[in-house]
Amino acid sequence: MSDTSPEQLDQILAAAAAAAGPLGAALPAERAGWIRAAADALDAAADELVPIAMRETGLPEARLRGEVARSSGQLRMFADALVDGALLDVVIDTADADAKPVPRPDLRRTLVPLGPVLVFAASNFPFAFSVCGGDTASALAAGCPVVVKAHPGHPEVSVRTAEVMTEALGKAGAPDGTLGLVTGFEIGVQALQDARVKAGGFTGSVPAGLALHKVAANRPEPIPFYGELGSLNPVFVTPAAVAARGAGIATGYVGSFTLGVGQFCTKPGLLFLPTGHGLQEQLVDAVTGVAEARMLNDRIAQGFSTGLERLAQVGGVRVWASGDGATLLQTTVPELLARRDEILEECFGPVSIVVEYANEDELLSGVEAFGGNLTATLHGEPEDAELAARLLPMLTDRAGRVIWNGWPTGVAVTWAMEHGGPFPATVGSVHTSVGVTAARRFQRGVSYQDTPD
Amino acid sequence: MSDTSPEQLDQILAAAAAAAGPLGAALPAERAGWIRAAADALDAAADELVPIAMRETGLPEARLRGEVARSSGQLRMFADALVDGALLDVVIDTADADAKPVPRPDLRRTLVPLGPVLVFAASNFPFAFSVCGGDTASALAAGCPVVVKAHPGHPEVSVRTAEVMTEALGKAGAPDGTLGLVTGFEIGVQALQDARVKAGGFTGSVPAGLALHKVAANRPEPIPFYGELGSLNPVFVTPAAVAARGAGIATGYVGSFTLGVGQFCTKPGLLFLPTGHGLQEQLVDAVTGVAEARMLNDRIAQGFSTGLERLAQVGGVRVWASGDGATLLQTTVPELLARRDEILEECFGPVSIVVEYANEDELLSGVEAFGGNLTATLHGEPEDAELAARLLPMLTDRAGRVIWNGWPTGVAVTWAMEHGGPFPATVGSVHTSVGVTAARRFQRGVSYQDTPD
Repeated sequence: MSDTSPEQLDQILAAAAAAAGPLGAALPAERAGWIRAAADALDAAADELVPIAMRETGLPEARLRGEVARSSGQLRMFADALVDGALLDVVIDTADADAKPVPRPDLRRTLVPLGPVLVFAASNFPFAFSVCGGDTASALAAGCPVVVKAHPGHPEVSVRTAEVMTEALGKAGAPDGTLGLVTGFEIGVQALQDARVKAGGFTGSVPAGLALHKVAANRPEPIPFYGELGSLNPVFVTPAAVAARGAGIATGYVGSFTLGVGQFCTKPGLLFLPTGHGLQEQLVDAVTGVAEARMLNDRIAQGFSTGLERLAQVGGVRVWASGDGATLLQTTVPELLARRDEILEECFGPVSIVVEYANEDELLSGVEAFGGNLTATLHGEPEDAELAARLLPMLTDRAGRVIWNGWPTGVAVTWAMEHGGPFPATVGSVHTSVGVTAARRFQRGVSYQDTPD
Repeated sequence: MSDTSPEQLDQILAAAAAAAGPLGAALPAERAGWIRAAADALDAAADELVPIAMRETGLPEARLRGEVARSSGQLRMFADALVDGALLDVVIDTADADAKPVPRPDLRRTLVPLGPVLVFAASNFPFAFSVCGGDTASALAAGCPVVVKAHPGHPEVSVRTAEVMTEALGKAGAPDGTLGLVTGFEIGVQALQDARVKAGGFTGSVPAGLALHKVAANRPEPIPFYGELGSLNPVFVTPAAVAARGAGIATGYVGSFTLGVGQFCTKPGLLFLPTGHGLQEQLVDAVTGVAEARMLNDRIAQGFSTGLERLAQVGGVRVWASGDGATLLQTTVPELLARRDEILEECFGPVSIVVEYANEDELLSGVEAFGGNLTATLHGEPEDAELAARLLPMLTDRAGRVIWNGWPTGVAVTWAMEHGGPFPATVGSVHTSVGVTAARRFQRGVSYQDTPD
């Protein structure tokens, strides 16, 4: 598939800019109807879209069907939030002639759309973080036209998804230009620099996200840019948890870090276990038993292979299991601290590291080694209450989601979900990228002062 | 007063970083108590602080006393919002084992502080947008230590305000390092580049704000930077409004644009009147009657003088009144459109431009000439309903606050206030800088998944 030409880009952005007015001015119920039409069309096209995605990404059918359902469900969730008024976040302060130090006028604040949003699709979710994904759904619900920069890992399903949604949006009455698609690296950067684009959303690597963040920030008119970048998602296990349910933790861990061939942004990259945990054999067996599976594309497979080779050669890192489908490494907290930057460089794919700690001080030092992450998980038991009370604030400082006795993979799409976290988990964002409040990334407030209905 | 040295800066930032943990972990009622103590101390010190500010800024006593009251009231408003839980924005989704496509865990989302915030104080409000201003109040309420970069226009009152607040915070039990102050241009930039600073707030000019925004965005760890920059605050008057209450509009306009010697970010910089409005004589009389008043400092007075000279010489711009204390210029919509960039360059001080429109098309073209502003105002009558319905969406696209039959100066500090707007009114912000939601600029979400109480 050839890249979008600069002339085509100009037409697509002109259409998006023209759509911004009518899309933003549409009544919530009307806009919600358009979004629901796109969701229905997506479900109806699943039989056609899923096989294309399977061929392009190597992901299994059940996973991809789940992704389509998650995406259409997410579009409907935003449509519901639009209809019930939650997305408008209306606040009313009535006039108060006696207010001090000055009388107060009648003020009614609501949220309005920023304008056309450019969404950079991710490689690892051909639906849920791509053309029909959360950035698109939240921006459309906010009232912003969306231009998606397709990920080169799944171009055909991107084009077909855009066609299916665009047709449905058009039939339902949405303005032309509500959804557009562009392809090509250079054209994506060019689009981000265009004055008609008013915000950007991105899911991908730290270097790419940082580079695009700078493009957005250094424009003559800087725009908000929301990047979801890297995350190691450490998991910390107390001795009491090992004693109570070590076998279950080992099984859960291997299942979580190998899910989707380890290609989730919430993959647990490290598991902290107390020395003498006695789980090595079980972990090695579980990892060795993981079947080989195709990665998303050759570039990612090559990157994983290179990253794994690098990681396995870092001093203090030992290979515990090297199976066909997954690899398990091991180190200790002192060794981790000695080579922190090398060991904590994210390796995207089915590999994870068991980090052994000798005592509570080492466990705390292990937590302190981390910067921003999407998630941090603690496995503990009721008798760990005191330790948990010390650890939870430390985990809160380092993550957007703190999980107790669970696993980070699997991101519920709800109001209370936070899919974000301190840098480098995200850049340019104090907002979540999953969940209803994700729409706030593409809205700004307007107050109407003494304005008649 | 000498600039803060790099060694002093290091100590101040170390103290702020050390305060971040305890300040963020404090219970809402406890933190609110500290903030209220600072507010009380501010009020108690008004007799000492106001004369210093009068000397340093030339602003009159009544205005400055009002500013102190506004600032202490604002601190208390944030303390109240903290206690009633509004600032935590808690959202709870209980577990749902039957949720599709996957079972849903228990998720509880709240907001946590980002960490130390660097606040660049403004020249024109030595209290309300300075050491004890809205950025400081909202950041403290969010649980973030604050380091203020003092404005060089009022250094002494900045130092004394910081001392008064720091003493009160300390006596009340707040951690050392909760509030710090630095002086000097270079040291401000250096502070913004420091890894311990996690967010920035700024009120000032477009060039300075853009430059600092880029510093924040281009750090190894980019941080959110909220800048409130320039605004022209256009006011549009319909023929019916002129017929119904032209004299009152003329008086209100001159009062608004000369308030505070025209040194408000919400000063109405342009007044659109229909040709044949018959208000010239009254406007000229009112402007000529404005008494001379000292501007904030020599640099601002010099900038105003240069800007006024430049503006008066733009082709198509005529001087209607050039009094001791204010200047009124006049042009027409076609002339404005012909020299848009020259005429719409903000001139900070007591000058405004009457723009005459010949018909409704010219009025609409006049609105379209504007980019982002803090405010946009429409004066109309009931019979203007159809025109107002066309204009209000256009004003909404261009401003953070849309005012009906009022004046933009005077910013109510309430939940529903929006003090923001599209670039260049703000940079890096989809949030208001005044009002309770301003605290959200310094918070991020965290979800707790299945975490015990």
